[in-house]
Amino acid sequence: MRLIEGAEVSKLMVKSSHARQIMERCHALGEVSDESDCLTRTFASPAMRRTNRMVASWMDSSGLQVRQDAAFNLIGRIQSSNPRAKCLVIGSHLDTVRNAGKFDGPLGVLIGLAVAQEMKGKKMPFHLEVVGFSDEEGVRYQTTYLGSRAMLGRLTKRDLSLIEEKGIEKAKRPQREFLAYLEAHIEQGPVLESQNIPLGVVTGIHGQTRISVTFRGQAGHAGTTPMNLRHDALCGAAEVILEAENSGMTATVGQCEVVRSSSNVIPGQVLFTLDVRDSSDTRRRAACAALREKALAVAQRRGLKLQSWKIVQETSAIAMDNKVSRILQQSAGAGVPMMPSGAGHDAAVMARACPSAMLFIRCRKGVSHHPSESVKPSDVASAVAAMARTVLELARAYE
Amino acid sequence: MRLIEGAEVSKLMVKSSHARQIMERCHALGEVSDESDCLTRTFASPAMRRTNRMVASWMDSSGLQVRQDAAFNLIGRIQSSNPRAKCLVIGSHLDTVRNAGKFDGPLGVLIGLAVAQEMKGKKMPFHLEVVGFSDEEGVRYQTTYLGSRAMLGRLTKRDLSLIEEKGIEKAKRPQREFLAYLEAHIEQGPVLESQNIPLGVVTGIHGQTRISVTFRGQAGHAGTTPMNLRHDALCGAAEVILEAENSGMTATVGQCEVVRSSSNVIPGQVLFTLDVRDSSDTRRRAACAALREKALAVAQRRGLKLQSWKIVQETSAIAMDNKVSRILQQSAGAGVPMMPSGAGHDAAVMARACPSAMLFIRCRKGVSHHPSESVKPSDVASAVAAMARTVLELARAYE
Repeated sequence: MRLIEGAEVSKLMVKSSHARQIMERCHALGEVSDESDCLTRTFASPAMRRTNRMVASWMDSSGLQVRQDAAFNLIGRIQSSNPRAKCLVIGSHLDTVRNAGKFDGPLGVLIGLAVAQEMKGKKMPFHLEVVGFSDEEGVRYQTTYLGSRAMLGRLTKRDLSLIEEKGIEKAKRPQREFLAYLEAHIEQGPVLESQNIPLGVVTGIHGQTRISVTFRGQAGHAGTTPMNLRHDALCGAAEVILEAENSGMTATVGQCEVVRSSSNVIPGQVLFTLDVRDSSDTRRRAACAALREKALAVAQRRGLKLQSWKIVQETSAIAMDNKVSRILQQSAGAGVPMMPSGAGHDAAVMARACPSAMLFIRCRKGVSHHPSESVKPSDVASAVAAMARTVLELARAYE
Repeated sequence: MRLIEGAEVSKLMVKSSHARQIMERCHALGEVSDESDCLTRTFASPAMRRTNRMVASWMDSSGLQVRQDAAFNLIGRIQSSNPRAKCLVIGSHLDTVRNAGKFDGPLGVLIGLAVAQEMKGKKMPFHLEVVGFSDEEGVRYQTTYLGSRAMLGRLTKRDLSLIEEKGIEKAKRPQREFLAYLEAHIEQGPVLESQNIPLGVVTGIHGQTRISVTFRGQAGHAGTTPMNLRHDALCGAAEVILEAENSGMTATVGQCEVVRSSSNVIPGQVLFTLDVRDSSDTRRRAACAALREKALAVAQRRGLKLQSWKIVQETSAIAMDNKVSRILQQSAGAGVPMMPSGAGHDAAVMARACPSAMLFIRCRKGVSHHPSESVKPSDVASAVAAMARTVLELARAYE
């Protein structure tokens, strides 16, 4: 017996009422902050607790069974008639960075809830869960994905020692519960806008290496030290900055500081950061090693010391599931591109437990992590439709 | 009648007792500070007043007529028997930068005093003055050479409106009073040390242009913005930093700041300073114009805006007097090099009023404007001898 008819899939229309409600709710959550002058919500904070209560009430009024787990993840569930069914999760996060925009995270949770509303009353071969993860940005403890990692039992001892709230490891659920994971999220980049396309499907999440670099040279008087007797740490850094740009990676020097700088003193010490991302871990590691060799060569030629080249963070690349991603792409319509994600997402954690796929939504000027973050209601409507069609297709595939 | 015999000039020996006393006095003045934890003495401050009293007492006990002028310059004088004679000034400054060394300035004043001690009892065709200028570094009002400019009537209306102490313009003396100016000063650079030579004679003081530059690009997520869609202000700055280094000038980017920087955000705005010096004003101005063209080209190619290119200070180059400098060089002994000064000195002001010459003294590692500033007593002894010989030679020349 087919639980859901094919005709039903094709009839599913973009409902603009969903988009209006989602936009309203994003704006409402945008007022729930731990700071009075900007939007900031961190793990288990008062504003996060209020946010969970608000979203819980919306879930509840849509007929979902709502609970908050031990790691402050908010879970709204529609039970399948088959009690032994696995669980399809649609999620994203409800925490934010400091001085955040309103869409990074909450938009995906609220799209999930709209999709769940569409599924109400339909017989489904899986439980459907909408999850608002409690910590993706990691602002409070400088350690990302606390929510999804707690749910999958992937917290480290260091995490548990850092975190004041006790017992969050009890959020752990067995991996076999999960059938698949879907996440909608703003792109946080300018690619879709530059191509004039509302949606994209994510091929995978880039691995990332964050390096902190220090060049030490010799400070000196800018007037009296001849050019050929200088050991200028900033000139050395400038060479590495341009090498990084041409490394073939997605590479960024975001911070660059001349220590004890003065306009008439030759820079004696410069600290800078290097953020290197790529879809291939092998390629990324090789590029980082090559950049280090170049920094050493620059140091030697200039009589500088490469005082520090410290990898402060390293995460592996992770591919999204081919099959689910293809369904998502077909559901999103003709011409929807496949594209990598340079930013991390809860899907990077969930993909280690079950087949996962992500939908990107165009955002204005590619701006994210900023109050000016903006999405079009019509793009949100398209995203709801694409996600709902995907759930229906998955229901057909798994029935 | 020859006032001073040639034999007397050649007999003048390096007296190590002078050097010991000068070193002791530099260390003593190094304790006289406006701050408790480092050496800082600014125009007319309590520490400057104490310093003037200390140096005045040393001048007085050496038989000089001592006065402080209206601009807080300390003047010790040995009167010529010819009341209509002009005045030979040996000077340097007694103020310091913040967290200064002990030799930049005071050393030249105390060498002048040692030379005056040597001249005591000799009949001379000029008045001899030892001057401790009250402000060369310009820390208090961010305006340099207040002492020497006041003495020569070269203060601007802006200076006078800035300065709390009233009446300093009364320090003005007629230019015709001055026969010549001599100044001994630490090199503040590494050239003499690198050539293993204790003394050098200054050809001229470099002109200087200080420019403040702002590149504006587009901030963005370091993970999600593809390299070909970036407008990275720091990469643009890096190109200009390296262009400046290769401009043929003595050029320094001393400060470089990424505005609202974060390791995972593409630099959207970068401020940096540019300090360009050369012995030729024409060459320096042409190089600055060429650097601006290059910055504009970098901005255009990268889609950045050269938001600001502001000349914040410009001083002309000034040559020392050929004749007096040659006498100083001969007095300093064989192999003493002629070299430009990249830093400004009171001699840059005095040279506009009378023939001026400067003697550079080797300093350890070329370090200046730092507590580790250091000179060798034997180099100081050589400097005293060279300056004293020069005064005797000038006495012969002007008798």
